[in-house]
Amino acid sequence: MTEFSFTVDAADGKARAGTITTAHGKVATPAFMAVGTAATVKAMQTRDVRDTGTDVVLGNTYHLMLRPGAERVAELGGLHTFMNWPHTILTDSGGFQVMSLAKLRKVTEEGVAFQSHIDGSRHMLTPERSMEIQALLGSDIHMQFDECVELPNTREEIERAMRLSLRWAERSKAAFRGGPGQAPFAIVQGGDLADLRLESARELVDMDFPGYALGGLAVGEPQDVMLRVLDETVPALPTAKPRYLMGVGTPDDLLHAIERGIDMFDCVMPTRAGRHGQAYTRFGRLNLKNAGHAADPAPLDPESACPATRDYSRAYLHHLVRSGEILGMTLLTWANLAYYQQLMAGARAAIRDGRFAGYAAETRAGWAKGGEG
Amino acid sequence: MTEFSFTVDAADGKARAGTITTAHGKVATPAFMAVGTAATVKAMQTRDVRDTGTDVVLGNTYHLMLRPGAERVAELGGLHTFMNWPHTILTDSGGFQVMSLAKLRKVTEEGVAFQSHIDGSRHMLTPERSMEIQALLGSDIHMQFDECVELPNTREEIERAMRLSLRWAERSKAAFRGGPGQAPFAIVQGGDLADLRLESARELVDMDFPGYALGGLAVGEPQDVMLRVLDETVPALPTAKPRYLMGVGTPDDLLHAIERGIDMFDCVMPTRAGRHGQAYTRFGRLNLKNAGHAADPAPLDPESACPATRDYSRAYLHHLVRSGEILGMTLLTWANLAYYQQLMAGARAAIRDGRFAGYAAETRAGWAKGGEG
Repeated sequence: MTEFSFTVDAADGKARAGTITTAHGKVATPAFMAVGTAATVKAMQTRDVRDTGTDVVLGNTYHLMLRPGAERVAELGGLHTFMNWPHTILTDSGGFQVMSLAKLRKVTEEGVAFQSHIDGSRHMLTPERSMEIQALLGSDIHMQFDECVELPNTREEIERAMRLSLRWAERSKAAFRGGPGQAPFAIVQGGDLADLRLESARELVDMDFPGYALGGLAVGEPQDVMLRVLDETVPALPTAKPRYLMGVGTPDDLLHAIERGIDMFDCVMPTRAGRHGQAYTRFGRLNLKNAGHAADPAPLDPESACPATRDYSRAYLHHLVRSGEILGMTLLTWANLAYYQQLMAGARAAIRDGRFAGYAAETRAGWAKGGEG
Repeated sequence: MTEFSFTVDAADGKARAGTITTAHGKVATPAFMAVGTAATVKAMQTRDVRDTGTDVVLGNTYHLMLRPGAERVAELGGLHTFMNWPHTILTDSGGFQVMSLAKLRKVTEEGVAFQSHIDGSRHMLTPERSMEIQALLGSDIHMQFDECVELPNTREEIERAMRLSLRWAERSKAAFRGGPGQAPFAIVQGGDLADLRLESARELVDMDFPGYALGGLAVGEPQDVMLRVLDETVPALPTAKPRYLMGVGTPDDLLHAIERGIDMFDCVMPTRAGRHGQAYTRFGRLNLKNAGHAADPAPLDPESACPATRDYSRAYLHHLVRSGEILGMTLLTWANLAYYQQLMAGARAAIRDGRFAGYAAETRAGWAKGGEG
């Protein structure tokens, strides 16, 4: 049986390159996890997701519990089998999405009662039910149930939610039902307030989780606030455990966070942008809807190993986007995921070579120069 | 330089198995051509289209002349390069779609003046312009410009359109600008009237085209009317030239038409049905929206070589369709194209073995039995 583990293989300043091992394989960190909300990375085949270098897909407990249902997925062999992704899966706890998507929410000490945004049916999520659902889905990493508040917010509200999340962390850890190679992760809360973040981190570290996430960021605050919170909080987390910055971010966010010692990311940005005609490339972000691309025979990046990035002209992508063709969404999503993974692979190599700062600077210079874009 | 050619490799009754050679490869007949309207087989990557055994993609002149424009496609290296499909392409003439999609059409001896359904811009299609567009697109098979009328219709109207199409056939052939390995095909018209069909066929055979299509069928008439027209018309076409039944059809239509000596087909059915939750299989047609599939761990067909058909449960496909996920459209389109190509490959093998009637009967028995469906 494979045990869940994390090793730091190289460090460069606070940045580190490492390896997470789960029941479904190895994850090279820093890792970008592709968002696979409803048991699909939208518009993508899993084979192509894998070919971008993606090691982890993220599934959303909130979506999956409502449709098709966690017990249904379990009967069908678990989420890996269901969606044909035999590699590592991380599931969130449902805590964040129940607050942003569900109707008629009521938060109590016990958990959150809510109505489905799909059909209005009534449900209850508690730390125990969230961990049960994640065990039924069979994901490799189970996130603790937490409450995440928007920023800016009052100290009282941030503190209340942080303390509730600490109590839910304890209940989540007790309710964790994973086997070998599976692990529960804690989520540090505390908004943009250093003392609350440190208190949350300290308490969670005492609980000795196999991994630590930073939640409640990328919820509307400016980038410099997020980076300040990382500067203040990451040093309080154990060196030997993976650190996951939830819901982040732009390519520039990723470089900043890696520099500050973050190991894992997830974000809808590359996939959502791909469905809306936007491409992330070495040359910056391009809007393929733009008429300037209509006659351009160049691919997004001739040097890319990704077929979507390399084998189709910008003129063709422009045509597909303008025509509302599904293939346009597929190719741009694929190209974006490939670029995010290329960025991470470059970061890992640079950390191993002790030149991460130079890599980040060169990468940003490429975006600024544009040129090919 | 490859010359355009057609050989009949085997015959079984009127059914024949053969090979068309074009500038972009060989086409095994009977052939089902995937519809690639706007330079994309909707929801599919060309790699996967090819993997189903598809030898030909059909492009629509009407759509492509309006967006992105034939001259634009030519500047970008032609349709093969533009859409990343290096195999054979057949383009229609725009005649059929200008009648079904465009606004404010006016048919004269010269051609058809119309307004774009996209932006209302004014255009004119003539036999000469249609052939010029198809040459700019660089397709391998160029269809003559014709006028297709709906059925049922008056003898006068069917006769008028048939005679106009004959004059346009002559102008189309004169205007054909293809090179080696490219060829113009004629279109037999005449509605459901045997004498008009025979007159059309006779006149077109005198013009000596490299291939002959039957147009104006699958436009609302019952299957038995279509099959009667095939019985009456196919014998008037040369044995040594490929015969293409345009816009047909269901798997059952294909078997009946192959039995009557047809070599080529195109139809939106497998692709359109795939985008609407329908699957064509050995076990008949399935509606994946149906709640009966929600807990079914079986794939569409465990014995299929197609990943979409073999590697995903019906429960997962049901989930994707119910959730409106793009991957559901992609997988079902892929599975449907794969089934159509499996049906054609089976027909070709059966013809070579002199057992086509048995193959058709067994195939129909599989649909009727359902069982796995």
